[in-house]
Amino acid sequence: MNFLEERILKDGIVKPGSVLKVDSFLNHQMDIALIDQIGKEFYRRFADKPVTKVLTIESSGIAIACSVAREFGVPMVFAKKSKSVNIDGEAYVAEVESFVQKKKNLVIVSKKFLRADDHVLIVDDFLANGCALQGLISLVEAAEATVEGLGIAIEKGFQDGGYRMRNLGYQLESIAIIESMDEKTGEITFR
Amino acid sequence: MNFLEERILKDGIVKPGSVLKVDSFLNHQMDIALIDQIGKEFYRRFADKPVTKVLTIESSGIAIACSVAREFGVPMVFAKKSKSVNIDGEAYVAEVESFVQKKKNLVIVSKKFLRADDHVLIVDDFLANGCALQGLISLVEAAEATVEGLGIAIEKGFQDGGYRMRNLGYQLESIAIIESMDEKTGEITFR
Repeated sequence: MNFLEERILKDGIVKPGSVLKVDSFLNHQMDIALIDQIGKEFYRRFADKPVTKVLTIESSGIAIACSVAREFGVPMVFAKKSKSVNIDGEAYVAEVESFVQKKKNLVIVSKKFLRADDHVLIVDDFLANGCALQGLISLVEAAEATVEGLGIAIEKGFQDGGYRMRNLGYQLESIAIIESMDEKTGEITFR
Repeated sequence: MNFLEERILKDGIVKPGSVLKVDSFLNHQMDIALIDQIGKEFYRRFADKPVTKVLTIESSGIAIACSVAREFGVPMVFAKKSKSVNIDGEAYVAEVESFVQKKKNLVIVSKKFLRADDHVLIVDDFLANGCALQGLISLVEAAEATVEGLGIAIEKGFQDGGYRMRNLGYQLESIAIIESMDEKTGEITFR
């Protein structure tokens, strides 16, 4: 069992509706030492890639993305959620559906910060149905840049996002993959 | 002139309506080395305070708050913007008006992560009219915790947030204070 799986067992809480609360260390209160360990682990797994930029989506991916970008020595860019398309043509736009909030958001990134010669490592805290990742991939593709890989802290293996991303040929690295969660007993099983 | 003022002169862009765009290094694309330098500078300025937690508000404060929290060796907590009050009583809630977006948001923080014995350093990327800071201070006060200081990367000295915060007796440390900006010439003057 790795460091993140151990921490999930220690402090994660299973809630009804396939929700795993990790807000005491990953996405509300942040344990910076853990976040940095996640950053170093992604660097180890993608060290052979010519990464020029780390891309994530606000808000809870930002801390992890900073730590990864520090390891690679490259800038971090976070896509912003938006209600309306900024129609000045200065931004790439994609549509993302949130699993937890059950609503659609637009995500945008300024064209200045994704260029055709960029090699992008996309990171996020969670992967469930993959809609956020799909949106981020669309942004990179719109810029004609290269997706070098997908780094996820916690993948819900019982939803199909990971399956779809691997099927599309992306190198998807999830540090903890949850096989199942029992909301009655609170038991968590990793793949 | 300090490191952040130099960077603002080099890469900041003055836009109509007293808007300073620093999205190439501070709040859309992030220069991690610069963010870490900001974190170390806040640590230097608040090193004598018994800080137990760093608090910010999503999204653009998160990167800076991570770097500060790393220096102090304490957790970072970010308040979340919300449309609706979560009425399960598990969160502290405050109202914040955004200067740029001209709209009101609720900001919430889980009661689990702010406790009466916490000594909180509040940080953010920008200070204009101080509404975001006021909201964060309200959250700390609701928890009966102690505000140890306010750390701001860029203060707009021509708006009254900084004046009000210092008048209230808080130790407010802004790394760059903008005295004036000329949207015609693009000239920026620091205090």
